[in-house]
Amino acid sequence: AASTPKRYNITLLPGDGIGPEVVSVAKNVLSLVGSQQGIEFGFQEMPVGGAALDLVGVPLPEETLLVAKQSDAILLGAIGGYKWDKNEKHLKPETGLLQLRAGLGVFANLRPATVLPQLVDSSTLKKEVAEGVDLMVVRELTGGIYFGQPRGFSKTEKGEEIGFNTEVYATYEIDRIARVAFETARKRRGKLCSVDKANVLEASMLWRKRVMLMASDYPDVELTHMYVDNAAMQLIRDPKQFDTIVTNNIFGDILSDEASMLTGSIGMLASASLGESGPGLFEPIHGSAPDIAGQDKANPLATVLSVAMLLRYGLEEEYAARTIENAVLETLNKGFRTGDIFSSGKKLVGCKEIGEEVMKSVDSQQ
Amino acid sequence: AASTPKRYNITLLPGDGIGPEVVSVAKNVLSLVGSQQGIEFGFQEMPVGGAALDLVGVPLPEETLLVAKQSDAILLGAIGGYKWDKNEKHLKPETGLLQLRAGLGVFANLRPATVLPQLVDSSTLKKEVAEGVDLMVVRELTGGIYFGQPRGFSKTEKGEEIGFNTEVYATYEIDRIARVAFETARKRRGKLCSVDKANVLEASMLWRKRVMLMASDYPDVELTHMYVDNAAMQLIRDPKQFDTIVTNNIFGDILSDEASMLTGSIGMLASASLGESGPGLFEPIHGSAPDIAGQDKANPLATVLSVAMLLRYGLEEEYAARTIENAVLETLNKGFRTGDIFSSGKKLVGCKEIGEEVMKSVDSQQ
Ligand SMILES: CC(C)[C@H](C(=O)O)[C@@H](O)C(=O)O
Ligand SMILES: CC(C)[C@H](C(=O)O)[C@@H](O)C(=O)O
Repeated sequence: AASTPKRYNITLLPGDGIGPEVVSVAKNVLSLVGSQQGIEFGFQEMPVGGAALDLVGVPLPEETLLVAKQSDAILLGAIGGYKWDKNEKHLKPETGLLQLRAGLGVFANLRPATVLPQLVDSSTLKKEVAEGVDLMVVRELTGGIYFGQPRGFSKTEKGEEIGFNTEVYATYEIDRIARVAFETARKRRGKLCSVDKANVLEASMLWRKRVMLMASDYPDVELTHMYVDNAAMQLIRDPKQFDTIVTNNIFGDILSDEASMLTGSIGMLASASLGESGPGLFEPIHGSAPDIAGQDKANPLATVLSVAMLLRYGLEEEYAARTIENAVLETLNKGFRTGDIFSSGKKLVGCKEIGEEVMKSVDSQQ
Repeated sequence: AASTPKRYNITLLPGDGIGPEVVSVAKNVLSLVGSQQGIEFGFQEMPVGGAALDLVGVPLPEETLLVAKQSDAILLGAIGGYKWDKNEKHLKPETGLLQLRAGLGVFANLRPATVLPQLVDSSTLKKEVAEGVDLMVVRELTGGIYFGQPRGFSKTEKGEEIGFNTEVYATYEIDRIARVAFETARKRRGKLCSVDKANVLEASMLWRKRVMLMASDYPDVELTHMYVDNAAMQLIRDPKQFDTIVTNNIFGDILSDEASMLTGSIGMLASASLGESGPGLFEPIHGSAPDIAGQDKANPLATVLSVAMLLRYGLEEEYAARTIENAVLETLNKGFRTGDIFSSGKKLVGCKEIGEEVMKSVDSQQ
């Protein structure tokens, strides 16, 4: 824990929709844990996504990236909304997020999907299938078809319009994400499943080859391979078979969302995006939910748990991370629920109130 | 129904693993329905996949494609197995399947996922979520990243190995699959959801644009759009929201497998692959299950239902198709189950026996 006074600079990127509400709660929780444990946090709030588009006309202003890069960790709320849905690609909020990931070089996206005993009923899966699910998707985040060149629009010889993208991976990109995945699996239950489409795609064949090569460095980790279509099935058939999953950017986008929905409580799920060096990016996996924005209905716990990941993976403040995770569990144990995870017999509260309850629980761990 | 005697030539491609067993049952059912309804079927059996590799060294022999093309419809069992898993790409059983699809020009893959009341308990989803699910995935099958050029391996400037593939769609490819999807939705509940990643990929942007353009031809069909990651979630959260889904080759591969697993009984699911003209390709969606091959344990009902699709979509023999579907339902109603769909209180039977029961039910519809 914190024996000497420390100071960290945190960039806050509230973004769009419910982003500002949930980031505000999470910031308060972080400040409280800091003052409790002798850690000082400086916060700088910067615009990104639709908020930045409205303010300065681009989804990722240069200053935002600059401030973020110079900070110790970045907390993002959510980006996007109907308002900007029809924008051209370079003026989409999503483009700002992709530029941010690329700009920070955060190639490793860790997305845990855990079914909490308190919330097992929220899952659409049968209780015996859902309970005990505890998996981690390690998604490659700055390569593959999201960023591959060439991309764009063109014409066929016959004058037909075409749209195209390139799925591409280089060995170093595969190696670095594989290493993160093996290390992650080693700290968990020692099982790693690499997901690809190596029966069809060359990019996946290289992926599989490199992951297999790295396995010799991790004899304690049990490595398996699965095709992406089968993985999409197995996640539903028997999610408990998985510990750590590693996969490319687009498969990770799909499978991590699928895995998160297995829990039935995506308002609870956090994520961390890490690079070789430099600050990590931490964000809830849910979207900006424009339909409930500003109504104090949002569930801030995913963002609060993102702050726990920020402390653990971004600042190596494990003790503070646990304090927050414990406080969230205690808040659930006391029966407090936002609308998205409400069930009868529980106490329905808003975004701010559940945040205050988390803070009380932090306090009580003094 | 069949008032004049008709004759159809059917190509049988049993393939690998459990393929031969399930195709044999389905063939018998088809013959019986034919003799009942005055339809004559000629069968020609040809090798494909691993079976063809072992026999003649390629996964799709020229004669197989030739015979298939000249027939009225093609019934495929399953392809692949551990034995050929390490083969080079051009010698993989899967490559034979892709060559067959391309060679036949079957660009539209229809994959229904229906939860039968008799089998609702097989689903890992809660009963109230699973019951009544009845959706159809229309997957583009001969384009996109499966076939896009350029593809292969190369080096970066720094000498790093890369593997790459091209996701590419031309307007005519999108238009023809969109048309099949709108027509399919029109015959179903009139709802079409087009799934893409248009917030990131140019190929998806063109996809969305063309699907939207075609909507004006189908004012009676309600068209929506969904990002693929969200679709992967929504299929679990509330699968009943979907009627017809249309999507590209790789997203369709993933989502149709996910959708099929929602039913909990992939041993029951059939698929049809159709082209502009020429014979269609009909196959169960399950794999070759090498671990149970030759043990009379396989569930042949997906292949039997593929024969029903063959009659409906391939030969426009709707009455015969229904006869088979009714027979399958009656067999389930009588309590017969193969191991994959067995639950206590039911009668556990093998591949052949359940096939015989289906034939009895066909007979009883005389
Ligand atoms: C908003 C979108 C660009 C993004 C992605 O596809 O990566 C999102 O779905 C995510 O998973 O963080
Ligand atoms: C075997 C494989 C090449 C194939 C595909 O990816 O299309 C299979 O998964 C399918 O969906 O029919």
